[in-house]
Amino acid sequence: LQSKLPDVGVSIFSQMTALAQETGAINLAQGFPDYDPPQALLEALARHARTPGYHQYAPMPGLPRLREAIAAQVARLQPDAPAPDAATEITITAGATEALYAVLAAVVRPGDEVLVFEPAYDLYGPAIRLQGGVPRYVRLPAPHFRPDWDAVRRVVSARTRLVMVNTPHNPSGSVFTAEDWDALAKLLDGTNALVLSDEVYEHLVFDGAPRLSARQHPALRERSFVLSSFGKTYHATGWKVGYCIAPPALSTEVRRVHQFLTFSVSTPTQHALADALEADPTDAHARGLAGFYQEKRDLFRSLLLDGGWNLLPVPGGYFQLARYDAFSPAGDLAFAQYLAREKGVAVVPVSAFYHDGFDEGLVRFCFAKEAATLEAAAARLR
Amino acid sequence: LQSKLPDVGVSIFSQMTALAQETGAINLAQGFPDYDPPQALLEALARHARTPGYHQYAPMPGLPRLREAIAAQVARLQPDAPAPDAATEITITAGATEALYAVLAAVVRPGDEVLVFEPAYDLYGPAIRLQGGVPRYVRLPAPHFRPDWDAVRRVVSARTRLVMVNTPHNPSGSVFTAEDWDALAKLLDGTNALVLSDEVYEHLVFDGAPRLSARQHPALRERSFVLSSFGKTYHATGWKVGYCIAPPALSTEVRRVHQFLTFSVSTPTQHALADALEADPTDAHARGLAGFYQEKRDLFRSLLLDGGWNLLPVPGGYFQLARYDAFSPAGDLAFAQYLAREKGVAVVPVSAFYHDGFDEGLVRFCFAKEAATLEAAAARLR
Ligand SMILES: CSCCC(=O)C(=O)O
Ligand SMILES: CSCCC(=O)C(=O)O
Repeated sequence: LQSKLPDVGVSIFSQMTALAQETGAINLAQGFPDYDPPQALLEALARHARTPGYHQYAPMPGLPRLREAIAAQVARLQPDAPAPDAATEITITAGATEALYAVLAAVVRPGDEVLVFEPAYDLYGPAIRLQGGVPRYVRLPAPHFRPDWDAVRRVVSARTRLVMVNTPHNPSGSVFTAEDWDALAKLLDGTNALVLSDEVYEHLVFDGAPRLSARQHPALRERSFVLSSFGKTYHATGWKVGYCIAPPALSTEVRRVHQFLTFSVSTPTQHALADALEADPTDAHARGLAGFYQEKRDLFRSLLLDGGWNLLPVPGGYFQLARYDAFSPAGDLAFAQYLAREKGVAVVPVSAFYHDGFDEGLVRFCFAKEAATLEAAAARLR
Repeated sequence: LQSKLPDVGVSIFSQMTALAQETGAINLAQGFPDYDPPQALLEALARHARTPGYHQYAPMPGLPRLREAIAAQVARLQPDAPAPDAATEITITAGATEALYAVLAAVVRPGDEVLVFEPAYDLYGPAIRLQGGVPRYVRLPAPHFRPDWDAVRRVVSARTRLVMVNTPHNPSGSVFTAEDWDALAKLLDGTNALVLSDEVYEHLVFDGAPRLSARQHPALRERSFVLSSFGKTYHATGWKVGYCIAPPALSTEVRRVHQFLTFSVSTPTQHALADALEADPTDAHARGLAGFYQEKRDLFRSLLLDGGWNLLPVPGGYFQLARYDAFSPAGDLAFAQYLAREKGVAVVPVSAFYHDGFDEGLVRFCFAKEAATLEAAAARLR
């Protein structure tokens, strides 16, 4: 059997988590919190695990009450954009991962080009290639990882089917500004290109900067699939519930594929998440996330700076990049392995986010961890 | 946006469920039970909803303890086959639906032919076409819906990448015999064709007939992906957990795609299912399913026969086919709509299981329902 993805191995996240387990290293590699979801959400799942009649297929696009709760929240948080229509514009998926794959499978045909900013989450390239699509990579320059729109312009053409945006960005935390969205809108004006905007870290924008969704740009809204994730928002990466917001015609295509990818998402889990949203009509949880994570960022940064680390700015997300090139000429993977084995802290080498293994001399720490974990890790990293 | 699946609408299952809700009809259309999973399983999910540390990503191929519990059960239930290796041969997926899609995405390339027996579950054709594959349909002749192996032989060629088997079969309930597996093995001998064996109704084989998996055939095991579903086995279609068993080299390819389709499956739900399997070392639950569903089949059949219905045999699964052609010349969809609107019982027209809408004059009832539901439906159907 010849593989369709011969170059795809075990993901760097699984690899480094395994290395952490093997070495006893503190796992700051794979992006997940070491704390649990809010207690009320756990109680809601426990309750619905026992609710009679909540154990068969949910409707294919998601529970109406969950979609309505999302629509209401998005309307509150994005008052400048029209509220999404729960019935025709929101689709609940098995994590944002499934949403991403469904969008690609729905719109990318063999030969279509898809613009990907690198560094990029490791699934983008292979998932495009599985559709017969051709990823066209544009590098985001360190240390700010903001798009160079002239470079982007040189890659966009009539063959561009889709532009993949990720804001806040994994791994760098860079955040699209109003100017970035304008530049993208201008570039796509008059083309048929669509936008996949992966906004799973949407609430994690720091220092009071505006958080802007593709949905909030009038010229982009009609061509955008906007993805988010309850895994990130509720510290529940293991529950695997995300969603896609897109205009009705685009949502129809996502659902055509979603219907065959997974059909529907856990019914009791959807009810639990709907409870959590309904119980929070002021969005206190979502609005509190930036402060919650900014505190972790600031703590971790100050500890690492004390330890002599060369840190890049972190405007959003829950990852800290650090430049290590002074330490190791053997490449970032070797350095990451050294950190796990010798220092007892697992990280992700940023070359894993480049299709060609480009090595910028950076490693990524996940700071979605208890203060005690960050302190213990920083002590080891001195 | 031109659709990649322009002919795919809302699935017949969703359509008929919606019609049932609109008309107040008893829903015997979409295949799901109207009873809950076993109480101990519900309690296990409630418990793990509250277990600290059970809410982040599960390992990509599934929780080791769940894979080990599955391996142990399969070894007990299929003593004539080598036990599957939990580490390298079992992958937990977001329902058997995701497993199906992952297998197709992993092995079907543009132009590859995939053999599909019709009637077939509605996702087979579109999911093949999304990979650029070419479905080659072979009809199973009513009323027994057993393969005509001479007809199959005429369709298998060097271009055949995959043969899709579904046993017990949805919608007919027909079950592969040892002779069927032998015929398939003989046909594929010397070819590179693989087998996807959708065995989600594996425990529902009636009248003491043997239940035979593709894994139990020595010549097929090495080329087969075997799919099953906790949704069917534990009356939990809404939990969306299934799995794929395949030799290591094939499992590697499934995981390469699964990693990008959904990455992993709900952690607390996997723990709950592992508890249920571990607590049942004699497989009493799985072994009891045939008797449990046979009783429902027998009740429903006797009620419908009393009502004058022309019923087809049901050797397995949880669906009853009925011939209606004496009643309605307008086609099975019209007849299904008539039943929902005028008789108050929703069913599925079997033409929905044919890519060309072939109308055999049959409708499908789901009998995975409480006796009281079956009795109420039968009373309406007299
Ligand atoms: C699905 S494992 C990867 C988690 C993640 O988002 C990351 O570490 O970047
Ligand atoms: C996922 S909805 C379809 C359920 C089912 O297996 C059927 O009704 O055939």
